[in-house]
Amino acid sequence: MNLLVVGSIALDTIETPFAKVGETPGGSALYISISASYFTKPIGLVGVVGDDFPGDVIEELRNRGVDLRGLQIINGAKTFRWGGKYHYDMNTRETLFTYLNVFADFNPAIPDEFKSSRYVCLGNIDPGLQMKVLKQVRNPKLVIADTMNFWIERKYDELLETLKYVDVLIVNDAEARQIAMEPNLIKAGKKILKLGPDVVVIKKGEHGAVLIIDGTIFTAPAYPIESIQDPTGAGDSFAGGFAGWIAKTDDISEENLRKAVIYGSAIASFCVEDFGISKIRNLSWDKIQERFIAFRELTRFEIK
Amino acid sequence: MNLLVVGSIALDTIETPFAKVGETPGGSALYISISASYFTKPIGLVGVVGDDFPGDVIEELRNRGVDLRGLQIINGAKTFRWGGKYHYDMNTRETLFTYLNVFADFNPAIPDEFKSSRYVCLGNIDPGLQMKVLKQVRNPKLVIADTMNFWIERKYDELLETLKYVDVLIVNDAEARQIAMEPNLIKAGKKILKLGPDVVVIKKGEHGAVLIIDGTIFTAPAYPIESIQDPTGAGDSFAGGFAGWIAKTDDISEENLRKAVIYGSAIASFCVEDFGISKIRNLSWDKIQERFIAFRELTRFEIK
Repeated sequence: MNLLVVGSIALDTIETPFAKVGETPGGSALYISISASYFTKPIGLVGVVGDDFPGDVIEELRNRGVDLRGLQIINGAKTFRWGGKYHYDMNTRETLFTYLNVFADFNPAIPDEFKSSRYVCLGNIDPGLQMKVLKQVRNPKLVIADTMNFWIERKYDELLETLKYVDVLIVNDAEARQIAMEPNLIKAGKKILKLGPDVVVIKKGEHGAVLIIDGTIFTAPAYPIESIQDPTGAGDSFAGGFAGWIAKTDDISEENLRKAVIYGSAIASFCVEDFGISKIRNLSWDKIQERFIAFRELTRFEIK
Repeated sequence: MNLLVVGSIALDTIETPFAKVGETPGGSALYISISASYFTKPIGLVGVVGDDFPGDVIEELRNRGVDLRGLQIINGAKTFRWGGKYHYDMNTRETLFTYLNVFADFNPAIPDEFKSSRYVCLGNIDPGLQMKVLKQVRNPKLVIADTMNFWIERKYDELLETLKYVDVLIVNDAEARQIAMEPNLIKAGKKILKLGPDVVVIKKGEHGAVLIIDGTIFTAPAYPIESIQDPTGAGDSFAGGFAGWIAKTDDISEENLRKAVIYGSAIASFCVEDFGISKIRNLSWDKIQERFIAFRELTRFEIK
């Protein structure tokens, strides 16, 4: 397996100032897999759903080259559900409900065929579960992980333990500050580098992303979107594009990590243009490439 | 005269979570003139102070190639004073007091020698006064202007009238949204382009700046500063660096406007590293050039 993806698979109910969508497929592992599938295959997906999860989405994943031997489908049980509401500026969101359902007892069992995966992308789940995954895989080249405030507040010690085995941590600005307990974002990133990761990517929503490696900082803008429909999954799509590009190229040089940030930003910019996974499931390599080039146009300036 | 600068000259009292500095020289015209003086001379300064304004700062301006024939020094009167306090995150500030003093009756009289200035940079003052300046100058190549929420709220109609004669509007994100009455920043910028300016530069503090021209968007990050001492004057320093570069090169092509944004960002990044004008008065061309190159390193990525 080239890329192993572990995370949540959900049915989301999303409310924005403009529309409301109920029970739409979501979850970190779904966004990551779909996004990464434009870059690399096969992708090994490990997750859990109930028998109420739409079969056409599962079929679509299979067609995308996602190996589903690690997907547990629990008969007679319900898929994880999340409901969230975005406020007027689309930057702040409120969780309306969380029903763990099948996710409550999720114990990620990595199929033997996935255990030698070269690249591992851990979506935002309990850091204890992330650690369980890492104990099952054999010497991956690169471990990429996400987390969130919920775990930083409730499982800080487990998170610190997991971070020792993470190579690239992808978090948003608030999470970076919270993990490092440091308000300055650059200082926070550098503090996280001392906790285990060699690379930190800090996502700043409409303000872009920052890549921090020892001695190097790279900044990427967000693609200017005049009409953001739904920010849900943007961070996971970023991680999927980032991980997908790295897995495709099998190159973890600083130069290539910079490009991975741009590919992640490109996929995230598509993600917010429609609700849920609607936009990212309908991309093409040409569209992604076109947006990659648009990022160059957005940032280039002459030196002399 | 190559560059005409009109704006406030003040004695500022600045409080941050870390320190407090009283009666330090400031004001938009001072920050703009000092910043621009690294790029071009002579600079024609038009402003007003009382006889309490430090003579060494006036002398310093003269040595920098700033022509002071437009500086009114009112005997027996006091310089404009402003006091502000920054909160913990350095992003929000509160105005503690404003004493207009000599500024209350300021009527910008442009000396004859300045009336054919090729470039005009209007610091943040009453849009009615900005208009008075523009009526006195003869066919400048480029008019650059700033404004603030105070005028947007109180003098919206005058501001709209002035904007018709402005080529480049430089404002922060909140001001852009307020002028355009539009929460999306890109849409707001494009709306402002319909009000007169051909170019809008939106400053986003620690998130950098965006240049919007019809059909083109350019984004620049903020230089990552781990220890921001005082954000006062950063926006004016940006405008000074931007205007200075344009005046130096006499080139208003899109390519050169992109570079002007980077030079503006570079000077602004120095500005916040110390209180008031302390840092920007002690720069050198080499230091500025070094930081310009650092912006390239911060944003570059390979296309193939």
